[in-house]
Amino acid sequence: MNRRPRLPAAAQALVSGDRRALARAITAVEDGDPGADAVLKALFARTGQATVVGLAGPLGVGKSSLVNALVGYLRARGRSVGIVAVDPSSPFTGGSVLGDRIRLERSADDTGVFFRSMASRGSVGGVASATRDVIRLLEAAGFSTVLVETVGSGQVDVAIHEVATTRVVVTAPHLGDEVQTLKAGLFEIADVFCVNKADLPGAEVAEKDLSELAALGTARDGWRPMVVRTSAIAPSGIEELWTAIEAHEAYRTASPDRLAAERRRLAAEIVERVRDRVAADLARSLDGEPSLAQLLDRVVERSLDPRTAAELVLAARARRR
Amino acid sequence: MNRRPRLPAAAQALVSGDRRALARAITAVEDGDPGADAVLKALFARTGQATVVGLAGPLGVGKSSLVNALVGYLRARGRSVGIVAVDPSSPFTGGSVLGDRIRLERSADDTGVFFRSMASRGSVGGVASATRDVIRLLEAAGFSTVLVETVGSGQVDVAIHEVATTRVVVTAPHLGDEVQTLKAGLFEIADVFCVNKADLPGAEVAEKDLSELAALGTARDGWRPMVVRTSAIAPSGIEELWTAIEAHEAYRTASPDRLAAERRRLAAEIVERVRDRVAADLARSLDGEPSLAQLLDRVVERSLDPRTAAELVLAARARRR
Repeated sequence: MNRRPRLPAAAQALVSGDRRALARAITAVEDGDPGADAVLKALFARTGQATVVGLAGPLGVGKSSLVNALVGYLRARGRSVGIVAVDPSSPFTGGSVLGDRIRLERSADDTGVFFRSMASRGSVGGVASATRDVIRLLEAAGFSTVLVETVGSGQVDVAIHEVATTRVVVTAPHLGDEVQTLKAGLFEIADVFCVNKADLPGAEVAEKDLSELAALGTARDGWRPMVVRTSAIAPSGIEELWTAIEAHEAYRTASPDRLAAERRRLAAEIVERVRDRVAADLARSLDGEPSLAQLLDRVVERSLDPRTAAELVLAARARRR
Repeated sequence: MNRRPRLPAAAQALVSGDRRALARAITAVEDGDPGADAVLKALFARTGQATVVGLAGPLGVGKSSLVNALVGYLRARGRSVGIVAVDPSSPFTGGSVLGDRIRLERSADDTGVFFRSMASRGSVGGVASATRDVIRLLEAAGFSTVLVETVGSGQVDVAIHEVATTRVVVTAPHLGDEVQTLKAGLFEIADVFCVNKADLPGAEVAEKDLSELAALGTARDGWRPMVVRTSAIAPSGIEELWTAIEAHEAYRTASPDRLAAERRRLAAEIVERVRDRVAADLARSLDGEPSLAQLLDRVVERSLDPRTAAELVLAARARRR
């Protein structure tokens, strides 16, 4: 894999298994530190092969316990696992509501597990992009399995799970109103449904309901979502869950559409980066360049509308070429 | 207000009070129909003065009943009210989970009320942008008060509520886990907190807790959020809620920062429109233009990373000028 022999020191340390270097690189990504760019550029050639499992679902279904059970299962089989937990947090203060709890303790002892929680500060697109970069760092550091856990059930989760290769939607019996939200936001992104807390009454009914829904819906890319029942307490069903994930991975990697899908994702990433740069440059120019500031003045006094103003900006850009 | 004497026919009908023309224009906005552009351009000069009240909060706090009670209160005082309800829906199918229920019946009888529900399909930014356009249409149609109700508590709500002039965050006693989410996502955007279902036990405690939190936090633009207790069933507290909203509106319109804030919002809107157009053009070019398609090929085979690819695209654009 050494297509780019000379790695920057920070990237070299990360690849060599230095967990502090990995942690520092992740922090740099989270902080939007420009130093992260050089590392990510250098490591890109070493990414794109990992199994990235997204676990989404509303609060209270026991996702964290399930992730812990899954990590235990994978570690017992010698697989190293990177875990990214994206926490709900204020878009204004960036504070993380859930802490890292007991999980950090384990990762300190076992170099085969690396756990990191990220606050979902910033825009939806920003969080999804930072998550994608952190997954790349974990993969370059040698974790061929990455679990991404999100807390919530909204469009943030949907955006984040676009970076996963297999998406598990976790639910639990008797969710009440949350099921509505779950169906609305997350139903279509599931490759595997997991009815957790299988020890509670109603688990069988929930599994049956989901199986029926999965059978009715249009299968994504020809894949019919699988439904498994788990209990992180017992624990039970963890092997079945991993088997379902591996079945989807096998299906996905054999799919004739795989390369085209990867091309679409990377094209979207390039477009996003160019778009954000153009937006940042224009935002600066609207204050600095007199002709643009005057245009904005006219919109503020409502003698020009924002749509026409945008068209004038685009026309001026095209003329300058 | 006739700064632009010749309105297109559709815009003229909407301004003259034709509710079918209003409904058609809103549908055109929702569908991304290019015809909506001409109407919105023509009507922009007639917007920007309305009181736009955003009502956000998790499922189960009784937002819809509260909105109904507020509409009754305002109608009894002769104010016309436009209501936009943004429903949680699938980002894939665009289907709306909640229906328009009994509310459409009332709007059919009373031309002083116009209710419209919108599905939150598309990106977060897209929903917020469509909501802003629908508010403009309602204002141009003569509704000087617009209520925007969102169902949920995530970043979609936060984005939508950026278009409101006064933001009401609705909560209820004994919300459990949802309070965590509420605090995380919506706390900072509240100008007014409303503890609904005041008839339930715990309402007083919830009000006290929120008042303490509001007193601790940094007030936004110097405004200290007000806390009111309501019951949409009794009904009680509705007048107090409206008084709090009017107090914030008076504060806001007297604020020395008002014009600067409006300028920032409109600048952001222009940037967004230019950015989206640049992104759409580039996405097309990545498939069509051979030099860009080759760049993408190199990224797919991982001999070039997406960051460097984006920089090359930006450099090529700058050279062509």
